[in-house]
Amino acid sequence: MKLFVIKIGGNIIDDEKQLSWFLNDFSSISENKMLVHGGGKIATELSKQLGIEPKMVEGRRITDADTLKIVQMVYGGLINKNIVAQLQARNCNAIGLSGADGNIVLAHKRAPVDLTPNPSPTGEGRKNKVDYGFVGDIEKVNSEKLSALFTSGFSPIIAPLTHDGKGQMLNTNADTMASAISVAMSQQFDTTLIYCFEKSGVLRNMDDENSVIEKINLKEYEKLKTEGVISKGMIPKLDNAFDAIKQGVKSVVICHAKELNKLIKGQDSGTRLV
Amino acid sequence: MKLFVIKIGGNIIDDEKQLSWFLNDFSSISENKMLVHGGGKIATELSKQLGIEPKMVEGRRITDADTLKIVQMVYGGLINKNIVAQLQARNCNAIGLSGADGNIVLAHKRAPVDLTPNPSPTGEGRKNKVDYGFVGDIEKVNSEKLSALFTSGFSPIIAPLTHDGKGQMLNTNADTMASAISVAMSQQFDTTLIYCFEKSGVLRNMDDENSVIEKINLKEYEKLKTEGVISKGMIPKLDNAFDAIKQGVKSVVICHAKELNKLIKGQDSGTRLV
Repeated sequence: MKLFVIKIGGNIIDDEKQLSWFLNDFSSISENKMLVHGGGKIATELSKQLGIEPKMVEGRRITDADTLKIVQMVYGGLINKNIVAQLQARNCNAIGLSGADGNIVLAHKRAPVDLTPNPSPTGEGRKNKVDYGFVGDIEKVNSEKLSALFTSGFSPIIAPLTHDGKGQMLNTNADTMASAISVAMSQQFDTTLIYCFEKSGVLRNMDDENSVIEKINLKEYEKLKTEGVISKGMIPKLDNAFDAIKQGVKSVVICHAKELNKLIKGQDSGTRLV
Repeated sequence: MKLFVIKIGGNIIDDEKQLSWFLNDFSSISENKMLVHGGGKIATELSKQLGIEPKMVEGRRITDADTLKIVQMVYGGLINKNIVAQLQARNCNAIGLSGADGNIVLAHKRAPVDLTPNPSPTGEGRKNKVDYGFVGDIEKVNSEKLSALFTSGFSPIIAPLTHDGKGQMLNTNADTMASAISVAMSQQFDTTLIYCFEKSGVLRNMDDENSVIEKINLKEYEKLKTEGVISKGMIPKLDNAFDAIKQGVKSVVICHAKELNKLIKGQDSGTRLV
């Protein structure tokens, strides 16, 4: 059986028109489908309004208790339910979930990472230990429970939140969630993972939307990475995408959100990972 | 088949210890179970922090666009997911939902209500027309989809939010949701509806927790209402509770949250509606 796992980025969510077009296309998919959505600007704006400064340590964003509350509210409550309501209006029986709901994505709190170059074995000089706070690294995706939702006619809409099984919600990267869920589902489904965002695909030249790399394999990716052709922001996305390929997902594509329509019809668009 | 629909009030949600005890008891129910939760103080606090003044017209609270965002975030994202994560830690496979999710509770935006005494037929003097904003009056509970969730082993945890089927989320009273859901489910299940709150039941004397009315029927309720024995705050709750009885729910009880344990064992506690 076919399954589409589609990730949608924050820039699309922030743009009412683009989101609306995207949801039209998503709801038109007749096969099993699932959406993983990111955050967008709203969480940052709400933090500012509440006077919560983004906490950065060694250039990395920390999810402290206040920030977790914000993302739980904005991703799990505001964005997730707005998308669900809009899909219901398009006759798509969407069901909005976090990783805690139905225990679909279990994670553990990320252990503090030591960024000290060559720390002594006694732990001296470990000044750069970074505690990311309430960030969840995925342990297990409960593919059986997700399948049961398909059987009941639901299309899961998943917010980038997980839980640790001990009562704690955690913040997890949406690209990573889409990848891990696709891997788990590909045991049972012929799974296509599509990363939809605001660019036409992986670009050879960041400033030229016509420079899309149509196909890319792991070797080429590593080469382009060392050459500096593939830029910083794309690296985690492509790492997640290649993780999915390595672990058995049949088809992974990175494309512009407005091109989803073509891909679900079996046409090509954006960058296909091979 | 047996089903417990349990409503929990805001005062219990705001009290970490009481909530924890309650969730222990809820998770110990071996039959089909469902939780409908209210709001609590957090939404009011967040509104204050964001400088959103509660809008009151003719003494009634209005859900404007900003307030809807707040309740969607706090009820749907923060409270709902925290309860779900805590139930998962207790081996209860909770799934958090709003009325939009799976289209389980469809509503329509409440029409403006004219509070003018004896308005003229031409509409003159209709100065007191109150638009409640994004408040949802329930149209339909999708009991089949809720049953499907039981079949898959889930316990739905429902936030007091609905949708209009046209893409709009709406704010709906949690007591009303619990009642409407119980009525719909009682077609198929032997349904017990339990309203858990911070008092021992319906009290003859508001200040005396030992004055619990153990059984009450509609006639007695109407009498106590006209006598002023049953106070303002209890009236909408009891109206909802009697609605459930009138429409076929077998058993409706109003009790203290800490007494849930007794009720699920078949013992008596609080006020039973007959």
